[in-house]
Amino acid sequence: MTTASPSLPSEVRIREVGPRDGFQNEPELISVEDKVRLIEALGRTGVRRLEITSFVRADVVPQLGDGAEVLRRVSLPDGVARSVIVPTPKGLDLALESAEQIEQITVFLSASESHNRANVNRSVAESLAGLETMLPRIRAAGLRAGAAISTSFGCPYEGTVAVERVADLASALAQAGAEELVFGDTTGMANPVQVREFFPFMADALGPDAELTAHFHNTRGQGLANVLAALEGGCESFESSFGELGGCPVPPGATGNIASEDLVSMLGEMGVQTGIDLDALLAAARDVQQVLGRPLGSHTLVAGPVDWTGA
Amino acid sequence: MTTASPSLPSEVRIREVGPRDGFQNEPELISVEDKVRLIEALGRTGVRRLEITSFVRADVVPQLGDGAEVLRRVSLPDGVARSVIVPTPKGLDLALESAEQIEQITVFLSASESHNRANVNRSVAESLAGLETMLPRIRAAGLRAGAAISTSFGCPYEGTVAVERVADLASALAQAGAEELVFGDTTGMANPVQVREFFPFMADALGPDAELTAHFHNTRGQGLANVLAALEGGCESFESSFGELGGCPVPPGATGNIASEDLVSMLGEMGVQTGIDLDALLAAARDVQQVLGRPLGSHTLVAGPVDWTGA
Repeated sequence: MTTASPSLPSEVRIREVGPRDGFQNEPELISVEDKVRLIEALGRTGVRRLEITSFVRADVVPQLGDGAEVLRRVSLPDGVARSVIVPTPKGLDLALESAEQIEQITVFLSASESHNRANVNRSVAESLAGLETMLPRIRAAGLRAGAAISTSFGCPYEGTVAVERVADLASALAQAGAEELVFGDTTGMANPVQVREFFPFMADALGPDAELTAHFHNTRGQGLANVLAALEGGCESFESSFGELGGCPVPPGATGNIASEDLVSMLGEMGVQTGIDLDALLAAARDVQQVLGRPLGSHTLVAGPVDWTGA
Repeated sequence: MTTASPSLPSEVRIREVGPRDGFQNEPELISVEDKVRLIEALGRTGVRRLEITSFVRADVVPQLGDGAEVLRRVSLPDGVARSVIVPTPKGLDLALESAEQIEQITVFLSASESHNRANVNRSVAESLAGLETMLPRIRAAGLRAGAAISTSFGCPYEGTVAVERVADLASALAQAGAEELVFGDTTGMANPVQVREFFPFMADALGPDAELTAHFHNTRGQGLANVLAALEGGCESFESSFGELGGCPVPPGATGNIASEDLVSMLGEMGVQTGIDLDALLAAARDVQQVLGRPLGSHTLVAGPVDWTGA
């Protein structure tokens, strides 16, 4: 009962995005020392992909204004790929100044006009045109190029987002050099039926060379159900955040990213390998909970691993 | 993208168990007036099955000592089946005194020795022998007979619980008269791979006459993923609790039942009919949140339905 069902992959790739997607939503500045310690703790879990920071305007996201310094000070085991995200050519200029501490740069836009406008104050076409100039620069710098598409499964302002529209954007970004496409369920609107159809559709549209990554939120409690549906749809790459850090201010008070602990716990129980040590991950989550000084939403952080015994 | 996938049922049955499984864990007594109002609010959601109370020793579960009075005072639309649960012949005597306000009585035991001992201070064989005498009495009273098996997917004290053991217990209970078998993931140890294999196995073991119901907990965040897996395994009947009320004191602090709002939201988005109006359900959950005076764990209660717009 603990081996993976034949229709599921035997292993998946996980990118821990808490240091970027989680920290960026914290109103109180976290010290560089705490960030470095937490990122290094994550680096010891066995995770192979870590999103360290983003290069955005420090007046907009002051929490990540220390990105270059954090990158410089963090020491990680060999084989842990560090990534950052950037929305604009100006952000890319800054990221490339830290190129020696980065293996991947991921650009991003939203699939829906209203959300893209709210997020970066540009039309989707304007953002896409910018990203198409940035992706070749990332590859020319010898780095892996990724592209993330927010609101890929629905937009809180516009409702349904057509999968064809997302595929067109993804294809354009792949054409421009993106080797990985990250599909974000930014406000937790995806459902498992939709997700199960989404990934085969996207794989058909993009061909075998592009890596497809799912980034789900747990806004309405469906995060891990969507992970299961994505696995069934052929997706083998996921993003998650330790402690269930991060989120989206829409709707107010809602939780955001799926918790890495819950994802790793479920996959481990299902017999799907992640390479991540759950106890080490829980230790990192306990540390960040202490730094932030409030109970976090991660279920496994509260309940402990499934082999917990009350005896 | 919003119609149900062919492999999923077009509709499912949901039993709301909050008034029993939720309330029983509340240390502060809830007034009969509040209980009646909340149960009647649930009755207006379109749900067709409501677990109203249990008949257990009032010194053990004082919160449900008012079961007979609540049953007498609650007024529900036609077609809403009221159920209660009872663990012992003595509890059944009491329940049958309220037979006119009940459509179903569900007996219960645990699949694992340690949990059954901790819960009702009997061996599983002793509990089973008692239940086998109770089920015919329920049917003789003209009521539907159910049987719930706790720790069906794992035991916090013993670990793995063999599916064959659960099937043997379920078969004996069906043989004795149980028309519905409820499989409880009492401490949230089930995983989707296990669940997807569990229901076809159980359907083979029990034949087409027995109704199989899944009762999942969200202890490690996998509750709705397990629902998806159960649907894929042919299960069409679920239990859940409004506001994510209830739980299990093992492990300490852990959440319990899946939230009815999250279940109904996901199924609705997937195109699986429940007959339940999400807005009415959210109204009942807001009411119970106010009665209890603390934020509840239901995600959809915080985030609102998926058609929420920030515009």
